[in-house]
Amino acid sequence: MRIKPLGDRVVLKRVEAEEKTASGIILTGAAKEKPQFAEVVAVGSGIVDGKEIEMEVEVGDKVIYNKFAGTEVKIDKDEFIVLKIEDIVGILV
Amino acid sequence: MRIKPLGDRVVLKRVEAEEKTASGIILTGAAKEKPQFAEVVAVGSGIVDGKEIEMEVEVGDKVIYNKFAGTEVKIDKDEFIVLKIEDIVGILV
Amino acid sequence: MRIKPLGDRVVLKRVEAEEKTASGIILTGAAKEKPQFAEVVAVGSGIVDGKEIEMEVEVGDKVIYNKFAGTEVKIDKDEFIVLKIEDIVGILV
Amino acid sequence: MRIKPLGDRVVLKRVEAEEKTASGIILTGAAKEKPQFAEVVAVGSGIVDGKEIEMEVEVGDKVIYNKFAGTEVKIDKDEFIVLKIEDIVGILV
Amino acid sequence: MRIKPLGDRVVLKRVEAEEKTASGIILTGAAKEKPQFAEVVAVGSGIVDGKEIEMEVEVGDKVIYNKFAGTEVKIDKDEFIVLKIEDIVGILV
Amino acid sequence: MRIKPLGDRVVLKRVEAEEKTASGIILTGAAKEKPQFAEVVAVGSGIVDGKEIEMEVEVGDKVIYNKFAGTEVKIDKDEFIVLKIEDIVGILV
Amino acid sequence: MRIKPLGDRVVLKRVEAEEKTASGIILTGAAKEKPQFAEVVAVGSGIVDGKEIEMEVEVGDKVIYNKFAGTEVKIDKDEFIVLKIEDIVGILV
Repeated sequence: MRIKPLGDRVVLKRVEAEEKTASGIILTGAAKEKPQFAEVVAVGSGIVDGKEIEMEVEVGDKVIYNKFAGTEVKIDKDEFIVLKIEDIVGILV
Repeated sequence: MRIKPLGDRVVLKRVEAEEKTASGIILTGAAKEKPQFAEVVAVGSGIVDGKEIEMEVEVGDKVIYNKFAGTEVKIDKDEFIVLKIEDIVGILV
Repeated sequence: MRIKPLGDRVVLKRVEAEEKTASGIILTGAAKEKPQFAEVVAVGSGIVDGKEIEMEVEVGDKVIYNKFAGTEVKIDKDEFIVLKIEDIVGILV
Repeated sequence: MRIKPLGDRVVLKRVEAEEKTASGIILTGAAKEKPQFAEVVAVGSGIVDGKEIEMEVEVGDKVIYNKFAGTEVKIDKDEFIVLKIEDIVGILV
Repeated sequence: MRIKPLGDRVVLKRVEAEEKTASGIILTGAAKEKPQFAEVVAVGSGIVDGKEIEMEVEVGDKVIYNKFAGTEVKIDKDEFIVLKIEDIVGILV
Repeated sequence: MRIKPLGDRVVLKRVEAEEKTASGIILTGAAKEKPQFAEVVAVGSGIVDGKEIEMEVEVGDKVIYNKFAGTEVKIDKDEFIVLKIEDIVGILV
Repeated sequence: MRIKPLGDRVVLKRVEAEEKTASGIILTGAAKEKPQFAEVVAVGSGIVDGKEIEMEVEVGDKVIYNKFAGTEVKIDKDEFIVLKIEDIVGILV
C-alpha cells in the first residue's frame, strides 16, 4: 500500500533530523526556520488545470522543503509528507 | 437520496480513523496535521467557469485530503464531506 | 415581491434544519461545519464581467451550501439567502 | 449637487429599514447578516481598466447590498452609499 | 514646488470637512465610514505596467475618496493626499 | 561600493525629514501617515518576469514613497532604502 | 554535498553582519528592517510553470535580501539560505 500523489504533489519520507550521510556530513535544521530533509518516494503527474508543472525531483532525491507545507500521513510505522512541488526548495546533490 | 457535487467537487464518505485494510495495515492520522482518509462516493463534472478541471479520482478510491477543507453533511446516519478536488492530496493504491 | 439575483448569484429559501423528506430521511447539519440545506427559488443570469458562469442549479433544487456565505434577507415572514453559485457545494438528488 | 459614481460604482439612497412597500409588505433585515435595502440614484460608466462591467441595475431600482461594502456620504440631510456593482446582490422586483 | 503623481495616482487637496458650497449645502462625513471630500490638484499619466488606466477625474474636481487610502503629504502649510484613482469613488457634480 | 537594484526596484537615499529646499520650503511628514522624502540614487532595469515595468523616476529625483515599503540598508554612514517603483507615489517638481 | 535550488530559487551563504570589505567599508544592517548581506553560491534554472524568470544574480555576487524570506539550511558548519530571486533586492557592486 502506497500513496499516489495528485497533480503537482510529491510524497516524501522523512529523513532523520541528524542523519549521518555517506560522506560523513551531519544534516541539521537551522534554528530559526527549521529546514526539513526528506526523500522523495512518489511524484505526481504535474498536471494542474490542464497545464503541466515541471516536477524537478525524482524518486530517491534528498530534498529540502518548507516546514509548514503539506499533509502528514502515517501508514503502518512510516511517516510521509504529501506536498506540492512548489514547497520543495532544493535538492541535496 | 444522495449528494450530487457541483463543479470540481467530490463527495467523500469518511473511513474510520483506525481501519484495518485488506492487507492488514492500520491507517492512522499523524499527530501534527491529521491526515484524513475517506472513500470517494461521487465526483462532480469538473467544469468551473467554462474550463474543465481534471478530476483525478474515481468512485471507490480511498483518498487522503486536507483536514480543514470542505463542508460536512450528515444524511440519516452517514457522514459525508463535500470538497474540491484540489483538497484531495493523494490516493491510496 | 421577490428578489432577482444579480450575476452568478442564486436566491435560496431555507429548509428547516431537521426536515423529514418524502423518503422519511432526517436531514441534519453535522456539528463541526454545519451544512445548510435550502431550496433554490431564483437563479441569476450567470454573466460576470462579460463571461458566463455555468449556473448548475435550477429553481426547486434542494442544495447544500457554505454556511458563512451570502446575504440573508427577510421579506414578510420568509427568510432568503442570496449567494454566489460557487458557494453551493451540492444538490440533493 | 449630486454624486457621479466612478467606474463600476453605483450611488444608493438608503430606504428606511422597516419600510412598508406598496404591496403592504414590511421589509426588515435579518439579524445575523443584516441585508440592506436602498434605491439606486446614480450608475457609473461600468468601465474599469478598459473593460466594461455589466451594470445590472437602473436608477429607481430597490436593491439589496452587502452591509460592509462601500463609502457612506451625507449631503445636506440625505445619506448615500457609493459602492461597486459587485456588492449589490439582488433587485426587489 | 508641487507633487507629480506617478502612474494611476492623483494628488488631492483636502477640503474642510464642513465646507459651505456655492449652493449653500453643508458637506459632512457620515459617522460610520467618514467620506472624505477633496479637490483634485494633479492627475498621473494613468500608465501602469504598460496598460492605460482611465483617469476619470480632472484638476479642480471635488471628489469623494476612501478614507484609509493613500499617502498624506504636508508641503509648507498645505496638506495633500496622493492616492490611486481606484480609491476615488465619485465626483460631486 | 554601491547598490544595484534588481528588477523594478529603486535605491533611495533618505532626505532629512525637515529639510529646507532651495525655494525655502520646509518639508515635513504629516502626522497620520508620515510621507517619506528621499532622493533616487539608482534605478533598476524594470524587467520583471520578462515584462518591462515603466520606471517613472530618474537619479536625482526627490520622491515621496510609502512608509512601510522596502528594505533599509546602511553602508558606511549612509542610509539607503531599496523599494519597488510601485511604492513611489510621486515626485517633487 | 551542496544544495541545488529549484525553479527561481537561489542559495545564499551568509556574510558576517559586520564584515570589513576589501575597500574597508563596514557593512551593517539598519535597525528598523535589518538588511541581509549574503553571497550567492547557487542559482536555480529560473523555470517556473514553463515560464523563464530572469535570474539577475551570479555565483559570487554579494546581495541584499528580504530578511523574512526563504528557508535556512545548515550543512556541516555552514549556514545557507534558499530563497526566491524576487526576495533579492539588490547587488553590491
